[in-house]
Amino acid sequence: MSLPPLTSHGERIDDLVIGGLQIIQLPEEFCFTLDAVLLAHFASVAPGVKAVDLGTGTGAVALLLAARGAQVIGIELNPRSAGMAARSVKLNQLESTVSIVCHDLKLIREILPSGEFPLVVANPPYRVPGHGLLNPKDTVAAARHELTATLADVIAAARYLVKYRGRFALVHLPERMAEILKAMTDAGLEPKRLRLVYPYPDKKPKFLLVEGIRGARPGLEVLPPLFVYSAPGEYSQEIREYYQADLDNGNDGAR
Amino acid sequence: MSLPPLTSHGERIDDLVIGGLQIIQLPEEFCFTLDAVLLAHFASVAPGVKAVDLGTGTGAVALLLAARGAQVIGIELNPRSAGMAARSVKLNQLESTVSIVCHDLKLIREILPSGEFPLVVANPPYRVPGHGLLNPKDTVAAARHELTATLADVIAAARYLVKYRGRFALVHLPERMAEILKAMTDAGLEPKRLRLVYPYPDKKPKFLLVEGIRGARPGLEVLPPLFVYSAPGEYSQEIREYYQADLDNGNDGAR
Repeated sequence: MSLPPLTSHGERIDDLVIGGLQIIQLPEEFCFTLDAVLLAHFASVAPGVKAVDLGTGTGAVALLLAARGAQVIGIELNPRSAGMAARSVKLNQLESTVSIVCHDLKLIREILPSGEFPLVVANPPYRVPGHGLLNPKDTVAAARHELTATLADVIAAARYLVKYRGRFALVHLPERMAEILKAMTDAGLEPKRLRLVYPYPDKKPKFLLVEGIRGARPGLEVLPPLFVYSAPGEYSQEIREYYQADLDNGNDGAR
Repeated sequence: MSLPPLTSHGERIDDLVIGGLQIIQLPEEFCFTLDAVLLAHFASVAPGVKAVDLGTGTGAVALLLAARGAQVIGIELNPRSAGMAARSVKLNQLESTVSIVCHDLKLIREILPSGEFPLVVANPPYRVPGHGLLNPKDTVAAARHELTATLADVIAAARYLVKYRGRFALVHLPERMAEILKAMTDAGLEPKRLRLVYPYPDKKPKFLLVEGIRGARPGLEVLPPLFVYSAPGEYSQEIREYYQADLDNGNDGAR
Protein backbone atom coordinates (compact mmCIF):
# COMPACT_ATOMS: atom_id res chain seq x y z
CA MET A 1 0.00 0.00 0.00
CA SER A 2 1.52 3.34 -0.99
CA LEU A 3 1.08 6.51 1.09
CA PRO A 4 -1.04 9.26 -0.47
CA PRO A 5 1.09 11.96 -2.10
CA LEU A 6 1.70 15.10 -0.03
CA THR A 7 0.68 17.42 -2.80
CA SER A 8 -2.42 17.43 -4.99
CA HIS A 9 -2.82 18.71 -8.52
CA GLY A 10 -1.34 22.18 -8.98
CA GLU A 11 0.16 22.43 -5.51
CA ARG A 12 3.84 22.77 -4.90
CA ILE A 13 6.17 22.58 -1.91
CA ASP A 14 7.90 25.88 -1.13
CA ASP A 15 10.70 26.74 1.25
CA LEU A 16 9.38 28.87 4.14
CA VAL A 17 12.92 30.33 4.27
CA ILE A 18 12.94 30.07 8.06
CA GLY A 19 14.03 27.26 10.33
CA GLY A 20 14.25 24.86 7.38
CA LEU A 21 10.45 24.79 7.16
CA GLN A 22 8.60 23.94 4.00
CA ILE A 23 5.05 24.79 3.06
CA ILE A 24 2.59 23.34 0.57
CA GLN A 25 0.97 26.06 -1.50
CA LEU A 26 -1.13 26.44 -4.59
CA PRO A 27 0.75 29.03 -6.65
CA GLU A 28 -2.41 30.12 -8.45
CA GLU A 29 -3.97 31.06 -5.14
CA PHE A 30 -2.77 32.71 -1.98
CA CYS A 31 0.90 32.17 -1.08
CA PHE A 32 2.51 33.15 2.21
CA THR A 33 4.11 36.53 2.09
CA LEU A 34 6.14 38.91 4.17
CA ASP A 35 3.23 39.78 6.46
CA ALA A 36 3.18 36.23 7.85
CA VAL A 37 6.89 36.45 8.63
CA LEU A 38 6.45 39.88 10.24
CA LEU A 39 3.58 38.70 12.45
CA ALA A 40 5.40 35.54 13.56
CA HIS A 41 8.41 37.63 14.61
CA PHE A 42 6.40 40.44 16.19
CA ALA A 43 4.28 38.24 18.47
CA SER A 44 5.56 37.71 22.01
CA VAL A 45 6.35 33.97 21.99
CA ALA A 46 7.43 32.33 25.25
CA PRO A 47 8.81 28.78 24.93
CA GLY A 48 6.00 26.24 24.84
CA VAL A 49 3.28 28.92 24.83
CA LYS A 50 -0.16 27.68 23.75
CA ALA A 51 -1.17 29.74 20.75
CA VAL A 52 -4.08 29.91 18.32
CA ASP A 53 -3.71 31.22 14.76
CA LEU A 54 -7.11 32.47 13.59
CA GLY A 55 -7.54 31.92 9.85
CA THR A 56 -4.27 30.12 9.35
CA GLY A 57 -4.71 29.63 5.59
CA THR A 58 -1.99 27.27 4.37
CA GLY A 59 -0.37 27.50 7.80
CA ALA A 60 2.57 29.86 7.32
CA VAL A 61 2.13 31.77 10.60
CA ALA A 62 1.37 28.57 12.54
CA LEU A 63 4.55 26.91 11.24
CA LEU A 64 6.67 29.98 11.93
CA LEU A 65 5.31 30.29 15.48
CA ALA A 66 6.12 26.61 16.01
CA ALA A 67 9.66 27.33 14.82
CA ARG A 68 9.80 30.01 17.54
CA GLY A 69 8.77 27.45 20.18
CA ALA A 70 4.98 27.79 20.40
CA GLN A 71 2.39 25.01 20.58
CA VAL A 72 -0.04 26.11 17.88
CA ILE A 73 -3.63 25.42 16.90
CA GLY A 74 -4.38 26.79 13.44
CA ILE A 75 -8.04 27.42 12.59
CA GLU A 76 -9.00 27.53 8.92
CA LEU A 77 -12.45 27.53 7.33
CA ASN A 78 -11.44 26.61 3.78
CA PRO A 79 -11.02 22.81 3.61
CA ARG A 80 -8.46 22.88 0.83
CA SER A 81 -6.25 25.43 2.64
CA ALA A 82 -6.66 23.55 5.91
CA GLY A 83 -5.68 20.34 4.13
CA MET A 84 -2.55 21.93 2.72
CA ALA A 85 -1.69 23.34 6.15
CA ALA A 86 -2.15 19.92 7.77
CA ARG A 87 0.05 18.29 5.15
CA SER A 88 2.70 21.00 5.66
CA VAL A 89 2.66 20.20 9.40
CA LYS A 90 3.31 16.57 8.49
CA LEU A 91 5.98 17.46 5.94
CA ASN A 92 7.84 19.38 8.64
CA GLN A 93 7.25 16.63 11.24
CA LEU A 94 5.53 19.12 13.52
CA GLU A 95 2.49 16.97 14.34
CA SER A 96 3.26 17.16 18.06
CA THR A 97 3.51 20.95 17.92
CA VAL A 98 0.95 22.22 15.40
CA SER A 99 -2.69 21.13 14.99
CA ILE A 100 -4.80 22.32 12.09
CA VAL A 101 -8.56 22.47 12.66
CA CYS A 102 -10.93 23.09 9.76
CA HIS A 103 -13.61 25.23 11.37
CA ASP A 104 -15.29 28.62 11.19
CA LEU A 105 -13.64 31.07 13.60
CA LYS A 106 -17.06 32.65 14.13
CA LEU A 107 -18.04 29.35 15.79
CA ILE A 108 -14.83 29.07 17.81
CA ARG A 109 -16.72 28.30 21.01
CA GLU A 110 -17.84 25.00 19.50
CA ILE A 111 -14.29 23.68 19.50
CA LEU A 112 -12.06 25.56 21.96
CA PRO A 113 -12.40 26.66 25.60
CA SER A 114 -12.76 30.29 26.63
CA GLY A 115 -10.01 32.31 28.31
CA GLU A 116 -7.30 29.65 28.25
CA PHE A 117 -4.81 30.81 25.63
CA PRO A 118 -1.85 33.08 26.44
CA LEU A 119 -1.40 33.94 22.75
CA VAL A 120 -3.76 34.39 19.80
CA VAL A 121 -2.55 35.69 16.45
CA ALA A 122 -4.26 36.61 13.19
CA ASN A 123 -3.23 37.59 9.69
CA PRO A 124 -6.81 38.13 8.54
CA PRO A 125 -8.24 39.32 5.23
CA TYR A 126 -7.35 42.99 4.93
CA ARG A 127 -10.10 44.47 2.84
CA VAL A 128 -13.78 45.09 3.32
CA PRO A 129 -15.78 43.72 0.34
CA GLY A 130 -16.46 46.56 -2.04
CA HIS A 131 -12.98 48.01 -1.54
CA GLY A 132 -10.66 46.72 -4.22
CA LEU A 133 -11.38 44.19 -6.92
CA LEU A 134 -12.61 40.80 -5.82
CA ASN A 135 -10.46 37.97 -7.05
CA PRO A 136 -12.59 35.63 -9.13
CA LYS A 137 -10.98 32.63 -7.43
CA ASP A 138 -12.94 32.22 -4.22
CA THR A 139 -10.11 31.11 -1.94
CA VAL A 140 -8.08 34.14 -2.92
CA ALA A 141 -11.05 36.44 -2.45
CA ALA A 142 -11.70 35.01 1.03
CA ALA A 143 -8.04 35.41 1.96
CA ARG A 144 -7.94 39.06 0.85
CA HIS A 145 -11.45 40.26 1.59
CA GLU A 146 -13.66 39.88 4.62
CA LEU A 147 -16.03 37.45 2.93
CA THR A 148 -16.11 34.72 5.57
CA ALA A 149 -14.99 36.69 8.65
CA THR A 150 -14.84 40.40 9.41
CA LEU A 151 -12.33 42.19 11.60
CA ALA A 152 -15.01 42.21 14.31
CA ASP A 153 -15.38 38.42 14.00
CA VAL A 154 -11.62 37.92 14.34
CA ILE A 155 -11.39 40.19 17.38
CA ALA A 156 -14.44 38.55 18.98
CA ALA A 157 -12.83 35.13 18.54
CA ALA A 158 -9.55 36.42 19.99
CA ARG A 159 -11.39 37.95 22.93
CA TYR A 160 -13.09 34.61 23.58
CA LEU A 161 -9.83 32.62 23.48
CA VAL A 162 -7.27 34.87 25.18
CA LYS A 163 -6.80 34.38 28.90
CA TYR A 164 -6.61 37.29 31.33
CA ARG A 165 -3.27 39.04 30.71
CA GLY A 166 -2.87 36.99 27.55
CA ARG A 167 -1.91 38.55 24.21
CA PHE A 168 -3.49 39.02 20.82
CA ALA A 169 -1.17 39.94 17.93
CA LEU A 170 -2.40 41.07 14.55
CA VAL A 171 -0.93 42.12 11.22
CA HIS A 172 -3.13 44.38 9.13
CA LEU A 173 -3.19 47.48 6.95
CA PRO A 174 -2.22 50.87 8.43
CA GLU A 175 -5.29 52.41 6.77
CA ARG A 176 -7.47 50.42 9.19
CA MET A 177 -5.47 51.31 12.30
CA ALA A 178 -8.12 53.55 13.88
CA GLU A 179 -10.79 50.89 13.48
CA ILE A 180 -8.49 48.13 14.76
CA LEU A 181 -7.32 49.97 17.87
CA LYS A 182 -10.88 50.94 18.74
CA ALA A 183 -12.19 47.41 18.22
CA MET A 184 -9.39 45.94 20.35
CA THR A 185 -9.95 48.50 23.10
CA ASP A 186 -13.70 47.92 23.04
CA ALA A 187 -13.10 44.15 23.33
CA GLY A 188 -10.85 44.61 26.37
CA LEU A 189 -7.74 43.61 24.38
CA GLU A 190 -5.90 46.81 25.24
CA PRO A 191 -3.36 47.77 22.54
CA LYS A 192 0.08 47.72 24.21
CA ARG A 193 2.69 47.35 21.42
CA LEU A 194 2.51 48.69 17.89
CA ARG A 195 4.92 48.84 15.01
CA LEU A 196 4.60 50.25 11.52
CA VAL A 197 6.40 48.51 8.68
CA TYR A 198 7.66 50.83 5.95
CA PRO A 199 9.24 49.64 2.67
CA TYR A 200 11.76 52.51 2.87
CA PRO A 201 12.30 55.45 5.27
CA ASP A 202 10.63 57.89 2.85
CA LYS A 203 7.55 55.77 2.09
CA LYS A 204 4.18 55.26 3.70
CA PRO A 205 3.87 52.13 5.83
CA LYS A 206 2.55 48.93 4.24
CA PHE A 207 1.77 46.94 7.37
CA LEU A 208 0.62 47.52 10.91
CA LEU A 209 1.67 45.15 13.68
CA VAL A 210 -0.22 45.47 16.94
CA GLU A 211 -0.41 43.44 20.12
CA GLY A 212 -3.10 43.80 22.77
CA ILE A 213 -3.17 42.43 26.29
CA ARG A 214 -6.47 41.40 27.80
CA GLY A 215 -7.28 43.41 30.91
CA ALA A 216 -4.23 45.70 30.65
CA ARG A 217 -4.32 49.40 31.45
CA PRO A 218 -4.19 51.88 28.54
CA GLY A 219 -0.77 52.97 27.33
CA LEU A 220 0.72 52.01 23.97
CA GLU A 221 4.39 51.42 23.25
CA VAL A 222 5.05 52.42 19.65
CA LEU A 223 8.25 50.74 18.52
CA PRO A 224 10.88 52.14 16.17
CA PRO A 225 9.92 51.90 12.50
CA LEU A 226 10.68 48.65 10.70
CA PHE A 227 12.11 49.15 7.23
CA VAL A 228 11.83 46.21 4.87
CA TYR A 229 14.42 47.18 2.28
CA SER A 230 17.78 48.91 2.41
CA ALA A 231 17.97 49.05 -1.40
CA PRO A 232 15.69 47.77 -4.19
CA GLY A 233 15.54 43.98 -3.90
CA GLU A 234 17.73 43.96 -0.79
CA TYR A 235 16.22 43.26 2.61
CA SER A 236 17.20 45.45 5.52
CA GLN A 237 19.48 44.19 8.26
CA GLU A 238 16.54 43.56 10.58
CA ILE A 239 14.59 41.46 8.07
CA ARG A 240 17.74 39.52 7.24
CA GLU A 241 18.25 38.91 10.97
CA TYR A 242 14.79 37.33 11.16
CA TYR A 243 16.00 34.70 8.76
CA GLN A 244 19.53 34.50 10.12
CA ALA A 245 18.29 33.90 13.68
CA ASP A 246 16.36 30.91 12.45
CA LEU A 247 19.25 29.61 10.39
CA ASP A 248 21.36 29.74 13.55
CA ASN A 249 18.65 27.72 15.27
CA GLY A 250 19.43 24.55 13.39
CA ASN A 251 18.76 25.03 9.70
CA ASP A 252 21.63 23.95 7.52
CA GLY A 253 21.39 27.14 5.53
CA ALA A 254 21.58 25.24 2.24
CA ARG A 255 19.74 27.39 -0.24
CA MET B 1 1.03 109.12 27.96
CA SER B 2 3.37 106.14 27.49
CA LEU B 3 2.21 102.75 26.21
CA PRO B 4 2.37 99.86 28.65
CA PRO B 5 5.46 97.70 28.15
CA LEU B 6 4.99 94.53 26.08
CA THR B 7 6.64 92.29 28.62
CA SER B 8 6.05 91.92 32.35
CA HIS B 9 8.48 90.89 35.04
CA GLY B 10 10.41 87.73 34.14
CA GLU B 11 9.05 87.46 30.62
CA ARG B 12 11.20 87.67 27.53
CA ILE B 13 10.66 87.99 23.81
CA ASP B 14 11.84 84.97 21.81
CA ASP B 15 12.23 84.42 18.10
CA LEU B 16 9.62 81.90 16.87
CA VAL B 17 12.19 81.01 14.19
CA ILE B 18 9.50 80.94 11.53
CA GLY B 19 8.23 83.74 9.30
CA GLY B 20 10.05 86.34 11.38
CA LEU B 21 7.57 85.84 14.23
CA GLN B 22 8.38 86.63 17.82
CA ILE B 23 6.73 85.28 20.94
CA ILE B 24 6.57 86.50 24.53
CA GLN B 25 7.38 83.72 26.96
CA LEU B 26 8.18 83.24 30.61
CA PRO B 27 11.38 81.18 30.56
CA GLU B 28 10.66 79.72 34.01
CA GLU B 29 7.41 78.28 32.73
CA PHE B 30 6.27 76.62 29.54
CA CYS B 31 8.04 77.67 26.35
CA PHE B 32 6.98 76.70 22.83
CA THR B 33 8.72 73.64 21.59
CA LEU B 34 9.05 71.47 18.52
CA ASP B 35 5.58 69.98 18.93
CA ALA B 36 3.96 73.37 18.21
CA VAL B 37 5.99 73.68 15.01
CA LEU B 38 5.11 70.12 13.99
CA LEU B 39 1.39 70.67 14.55
CA ALA B 40 1.33 73.99 12.69
CA HIS B 41 2.99 72.35 9.68
CA PHE B 42 0.95 69.14 9.81
CA ALA B 43 -2.46 70.81 9.87
CA SER B 44 -4.17 71.28 6.50
CA VAL B 45 -4.24 75.08 6.18
CA ALA B 46 -6.07 76.63 3.23
CA PRO B 47 -5.49 80.38 2.70
CA GLY B 48 -7.76 82.43 4.95
CA VAL B 49 -9.18 79.37 6.69
CA LYS B 50 -10.98 80.10 9.96
CA ALA B 51 -9.20 78.13 12.66
CA VAL B 52 -9.47 77.65 16.42
CA ASP B 53 -6.48 76.69 18.57
CA LEU B 54 -7.77 74.99 21.73
CA GLY B 55 -5.52 75.73 24.69
CA THR B 56 -3.21 78.06 22.83
CA GLY B 57 -0.93 78.75 25.81
CA THR B 58 1.41 81.59 24.89
CA GLY B 59 0.14 81.40 21.32
CA ALA B 60 2.87 79.57 19.42
CA VAL B 61 0.57 77.39 17.30
CA ALA B 62 -1.85 80.27 16.70
CA LEU B 63 0.97 82.51 15.46
CA LEU B 64 2.44 79.78 13.29
CA LEU B 65 -0.96 79.02 11.72
CA ALA B 66 -1.38 82.72 11.03
CA ALA B 67 2.02 82.65 9.30
CA ARG B 68 0.63 79.85 7.11
CA GLY B 69 -2.36 82.02 6.17
CA ALA B 70 -5.07 81.06 8.68
CA GLN B 71 -7.44 83.37 10.55
CA VAL B 72 -7.00 82.08 14.10
CA ILE B 73 -8.88 82.26 17.39
CA GLY B 74 -6.72 81.04 20.26
CA ILE B 75 -8.53 79.90 23.41
CA GLU B 76 -6.57 79.90 26.67
CA LEU B 77 -7.83 79.45 30.23
CA ASN B 78 -4.79 80.78 32.06
CA PRO B 79 -4.99 84.60 32.12
CA ARG B 80 -1.25 85.14 32.27
CA SER B 81 -0.58 82.86 29.26
CA ALA B 82 -3.51 84.39 27.37
CA GLY B 83 -2.09 87.85 28.13
CA MET B 84 1.31 86.89 26.79
CA ALA B 85 -0.30 85.38 23.69
CA ALA B 86 -2.32 88.57 23.09
CA ARG B 87 0.78 90.73 23.46
CA SER B 88 2.68 88.45 21.04
CA VAL B 89 -0.11 88.95 18.52
CA LYS B 90 0.36 92.69 18.92
CA LEU B 91 4.15 92.43 18.78
CA ASN B 92 3.83 90.65 15.42
CA GLN B 93 1.14 93.08 14.21
CA LEU B 94 -1.24 90.18 13.66
CA GLU B 95 -4.27 91.75 15.38
CA SER B 96 -6.33 91.42 12.20
CA THR B 97 -5.44 87.73 11.89
CA VAL B 98 -5.21 86.27 15.40
CA SER B 99 -7.60 86.77 18.33
CA ILE B 100 -6.79 85.45 21.79
CA VAL B 101 -9.75 84.67 24.04
CA CYS B 102 -9.23 83.89 27.72
CA HIS B 103 -11.86 81.22 28.35
CA ASP B 104 -12.34 77.64 29.46
CA LEU B 105 -12.50 75.32 26.45
CA LYS B 106 -14.97 73.18 28.41
CA LEU B 107 -17.36 76.14 28.14
CA ILE B 108 -16.62 76.80 24.46
CA ARG B 109 -20.32 77.02 23.60
CA GLU B 110 -20.56 80.19 25.67
CA ILE B 111 -18.32 82.07 23.25
CA LEU B 112 -18.23 80.40 19.82
CA PRO B 113 -20.87 79.00 17.44
CA SER B 114 -21.24 75.31 16.73
CA GLY B 115 -20.20 73.65 13.46
CA GLU B 116 -18.75 76.72 11.75
CA PHE B 117 -14.99 76.15 11.75
CA PRO B 118 -13.19 74.34 8.94
CA LEU B 119 -10.11 73.81 11.16
CA VAL B 120 -9.55 73.20 14.86
CA VAL B 121 -6.14 72.34 16.27
CA ALA B 122 -4.86 71.40 19.72
CA ASN B 123 -1.51 70.84 21.37
CA PRO B 124 -3.05 69.82 24.69
CA PRO B 125 -1.50 68.66 27.96
CA TYR B 126 -0.08 65.21 27.28
CA ARG B 127 -0.25 63.45 30.60
CA VAL B 128 -3.02 62.24 32.85
CA PRO B 129 -2.52 63.48 36.43
CA GLY B 130 -0.81 60.76 38.38
CA HIS B 131 1.46 59.87 35.49
CA GLY B 132 4.75 61.72 35.78
CA LEU B 133 5.73 64.29 38.37
CA LEU B 134 3.55 67.34 38.69
CA ASN B 135 5.43 70.58 38.25
CA PRO B 136 5.00 72.71 41.36
CA LYS B 137 4.43 75.79 39.21
CA ASP B 138 0.75 75.61 38.36
CA THR B 139 0.93 76.99 34.82
CA VAL B 140 3.51 74.40 33.88
CA ALA B 141 1.51 71.60 35.50
CA ALA B 142 -1.63 72.64 33.61
CA ALA B 143 0.29 72.78 30.33
CA ARG B 144 1.75 69.29 30.81
CA HIS B 145 -0.99 67.49 32.73
CA GLU B 146 -4.71 67.28 32.19
CA LEU B 147 -5.55 69.43 35.19
CA THR B 148 -7.93 71.89 33.58
CA ALA B 149 -9.01 69.91 30.50
CA THR B 150 -8.84 66.22 29.63
CA LEU B 151 -8.37 64.71 26.20
CA ALA B 152 -12.11 64.07 26.19
CA ASP B 153 -12.77 67.77 26.91
CA VAL B 154 -10.52 68.85 24.04
CA ILE B 155 -12.15 66.43 21.61
CA ALA B 156 -15.64 67.44 22.74
CA ALA B 157 -14.78 71.11 22.14
CA ALA B 158 -13.34 70.26 18.72
CA ARG B 159 -16.44 68.25 17.85
CA TYR B 160 -18.61 71.23 18.81
CA LEU B 161 -16.62 73.71 16.70
CA VAL B 162 -15.70 71.78 13.55
CA LYS B 163 -18.08 72.08 10.66
CA TYR B 164 -19.22 69.08 8.60
CA ARG B 165 -16.20 67.93 6.57
CA GLY B 166 -14.00 70.24 8.64
CA ARG B 167 -10.73 69.08 10.16
CA PHE B 168 -9.35 68.61 13.65
CA ALA B 169 -5.55 68.27 13.97
CA LEU B 170 -3.82 67.20 17.15
CA VAL B 171 -0.27 66.65 18.38
CA HIS B 172 0.07 64.21 21.26
CA LEU B 173 2.08 61.29 22.64
CA PRO B 174 2.24 58.02 20.67
CA GLU B 175 1.55 56.12 23.92
CA ARG B 176 -1.98 57.56 23.90
CA MET B 177 -2.67 56.79 20.24
CA ALA B 178 -5.24 54.04 20.86
CA GLU B 179 -7.23 56.27 23.21
CA ILE B 180 -6.99 59.27 20.86
CA LEU B 181 -8.10 57.43 17.72
CA LYS B 182 -11.00 55.83 19.58
CA ALA B 183 -12.11 59.13 21.09
CA MET B 184 -11.93 60.89 17.73
CA THR B 185 -13.85 58.08 16.01
CA ASP B 186 -16.48 58.05 18.77
CA ALA B 187 -16.87 61.83 18.37
CA GLY B 188 -17.41 61.55 14.61
CA LEU B 189 -14.03 63.16 13.88
CA GLU B 190 -12.87 60.25 11.75
CA PRO B 191 -9.04 59.91 11.77
CA LYS B 192 -7.89 60.39 8.16
CA ARG B 193 -4.17 61.37 8.30
CA LEU B 194 -1.58 60.27 10.81
CA ARG B 195 2.15 60.71 11.12
CA LEU B 196 4.64 59.51 13.70
CA VAL B 197 7.61 61.72 14.54
CA TYR B 198 10.78 59.82 15.42
CA PRO B 199 13.98 61.48 16.68
CA TYR B 200 16.04 59.06 14.55
CA PRO B 201 15.19 56.08 12.30
CA ASP B 202 16.16 53.57 14.99
CA LYS B 203 14.24 55.20 17.86
CA LYS B 204 10.69 55.05 19.16
CA PRO B 205 8.46 57.95 18.09
CA LYS B 206 8.15 60.99 20.36
CA PHE B 207 5.08 62.61 18.85
CA LEU B 208 1.88 61.59 17.14
CA LEU B 209 0.26 63.91 14.61
CA VAL B 210 -3.30 63.06 13.63
CA GLU B 211 -6.01 64.80 11.66
CA GLY B 212 -9.67 63.82 11.69
CA ILE B 213 -12.45 64.92 9.36
CA ARG B 214 -15.95 65.31 10.72
CA GLY B 215 -18.37 62.96 8.99
CA ALA B 216 -15.73 61.23 6.84
CA ARG B 217 -15.76 57.53 6.10
CA PRO B 218 -13.21 55.32 7.88
CA GLY B 219 -9.82 54.88 6.25
CA LEU B 220 -6.58 56.30 7.61
CA GLU B 221 -3.64 57.52 5.54
CA VAL B 222 -0.48 56.90 7.54
CA LEU B 223 2.25 59.14 6.17
CA PRO B 224 5.96 58.37 5.86
CA PRO B 225 7.85 58.70 9.15
CA LEU B 226 9.12 62.14 10.08
CA PHE B 227 12.66 62.11 11.47
CA VAL B 228 13.65 65.13 13.52
CA TYR B 229 17.43 64.79 13.44
CA SER B 230 19.91 63.63 10.85
CA ALA B 231 22.75 63.76 13.38
CA PRO B 232 22.97 64.86 17.04
CA GLY B 233 22.04 68.53 17.21
CA GLU B 234 21.34 68.71 13.47
CA TYR B 235 17.76 68.92 12.21
CA SER B 236 16.76 66.71 9.32
CA GLN B 237 16.20 68.11 5.86
CA GLU B 238 12.41 68.11 6.36
CA ILE B 239 12.50 70.03 9.63
CA ARG B 240 14.93 72.52 8.10
CA GLU B 241 12.55 72.90 5.17
CA TYR B 242 9.77 73.91 7.56
CA TYR B 243 11.86 76.88 8.56
CA GLN B 244 13.26 77.56 5.08
CA ALA B 245 9.77 77.62 3.54
CA ASP B 246 8.80 80.37 5.93
CA LEU B 247 12.01 82.28 5.37
CA ASP B 248 11.25 82.18 1.64
CA ASN B 249 7.79 83.55 2.44
CA GLY B 250 9.01 86.97 3.34
CA ASN B 251 11.35 86.75 6.29
CA ASP B 252 14.63 88.53 5.71
CA GLY B 253 16.48 85.34 6.52
CA ALA B 254 18.84 87.16 8.87
CA ARG B 255 19.86 84.58 11.43
